[in-house]
Amino acid sequence: MKNISIIGVGLIGGSFALDLKDNIPGASVSGIDQNVTHLNEALNLGIIDIAGDLESVRSADLVVLALPVNSAINVLIQVLDLIPAKAIVIDMGSTKKAICESVATHPNRANFLATHPIAGTEFSGPSAAVKGLFKNKTNIICELDRTSKVLSTKIIALFNKMGMRIRKMTAIDHDKHIAYVSHLSHISSFMLGKTVIDKEKNESDIFDMAGSGFESTVRLAKSSPAMWTPIFEQNKENVIETLTEYIHNLNQFKTYMENDNFDAVFSEMKNTNYIKQILKGIT
Amino acid sequence: MKNISIIGVGLIGGSFALDLKDNIPGASVSGIDQNVTHLNEALNLGIIDIAGDLESVRSADLVVLALPVNSAINVLIQVLDLIPAKAIVIDMGSTKKAICESVATHPNRANFLATHPIAGTEFSGPSAAVKGLFKNKTNIICELDRTSKVLSTKIIALFNKMGMRIRKMTAIDHDKHIAYVSHLSHISSFMLGKTVIDKEKNESDIFDMAGSGFESTVRLAKSSPAMWTPIFEQNKENVIETLTEYIHNLNQFKTYMENDNFDAVFSEMKNTNYIKQILKGIT
Repeated sequence: MKNISIIGVGLIGGSFALDLKDNIPGASVSGIDQNVTHLNEALNLGIIDIAGDLESVRSADLVVLALPVNSAINVLIQVLDLIPAKAIVIDMGSTKKAICESVATHPNRANFLATHPIAGTEFSGPSAAVKGLFKNKTNIICELDRTSKVLSTKIIALFNKMGMRIRKMTAIDHDKHIAYVSHLSHISSFMLGKTVIDKEKNESDIFDMAGSGFESTVRLAKSSPAMWTPIFEQNKENVIETLTEYIHNLNQFKTYMENDNFDAVFSEMKNTNYIKQILKGIT
Repeated sequence: MKNISIIGVGLIGGSFALDLKDNIPGASVSGIDQNVTHLNEALNLGIIDIAGDLESVRSADLVVLALPVNSAINVLIQVLDLIPAKAIVIDMGSTKKAICESVATHPNRANFLATHPIAGTEFSGPSAAVKGLFKNKTNIICELDRTSKVLSTKIIALFNKMGMRIRKMTAIDHDKHIAYVSHLSHISSFMLGKTVIDKEKNESDIFDMAGSGFESTVRLAKSSPAMWTPIFEQNKENVIETLTEYIHNLNQFKTYMENDNFDAVFSEMKNTNYIKQILKGIT
């Protein structure tokens, strides 16, 4: 796997390129991005070796799609049309059902592996790319049996070398669970940011009252709308389900407060402290 | 200010004691806490010099209340009844209106200064106490004109030495703004934790799908219910207002998704990215 095309040279694609260079001596990384500024930035930062175009995948051993999930679907089909038989193509998007469905009947389906490394942050673009981003991160792989065994074995060995933990899951299960443990957090954070900005925007001196707690809770509201809008679109049903439950829980908490039922307020928080045990498993 | 009583030797009281020792050579710190385990822990950690009781405030120069806000009100009145004329008493709770009202007509009102150093974390207890916790943190001071000028000058000089930025505000304004920039974050985080636990508790292997984003957003759900329940109770009206607006914004976001209005979803997030500018001011 020496000839590598990275399509989308942002945080995820750029970081993956950096790790590839560490793990594959002699690798030649071609970067492809509609955003010319990003492409030049990635060249200058040494993330990619050359700026290519979609045609360059014709000679690729490995093609990595690290794009907003709507673009990924369009580009994946074009890439599968162009690649040689030896090539493995992976995507790294935060939704898996739509992209798997989009290529379900493609003649080169076996060249594709759907992956989701849980490694994103609120930052984006090539300047956010770092070496070692994927170390100790979970990488969820979907529909493994639809991928050529020879090709998937090779790429999974590379993921392992980069320090990732591999989890296998159906695309449907992935999208259902990720709505709870990732997509909902983004909406709760964005709407927290909106609520506070709407109220306090004209009182800018108020924000030095905000401490590290607010900062942590609202961190994801820095995330890229261009990346997150198509995620919510593709995972619409699951996300709406999580939002409905979240709003229900907030309404219940509010009702407890309105009714001066502070025993219930206490219990809600006490029970949720269980998150400590869960978070121990993450860090 | 050599004779110091710290009432409540947890994260805030304990950290304040540690900084006091650095800033007041020869200070003798007496710790008072209903929780005997915490008191012994604070002794063993060198946070306090001796374990005292409420009577010890009779000879104090400085009394620090770092208690849950409901206990603080009860204890403050007892303390103001006992202290000598030279003593300054401060509280450090996350609500200011109720405590200021509770001593509004106390004969020793001028010995009290209401403060709120924005320095809390999701951790609690003496083991969470650290030196330098207050450095570069905002400390909001309310009803300064109700405190003896001599006493407030002394304690504010100490806050400055510890590296705090002082903000002055009415107790009513404090409680209104802090509901947005702190109290609401805690509820959004607790209810996020609840929503995810309710759904995923029996699928514990799902949580390795959770990344740093979820962890950040749900961090405050580790907070102490014993500390937060009385805060929500004392700041009930303001907190309900923030919750109402937050739920409204979440419902609107959900409606946009249901109606496939992803342009609006994009705009909501794009506008909220403004939080980046705001957060730059915090860190």
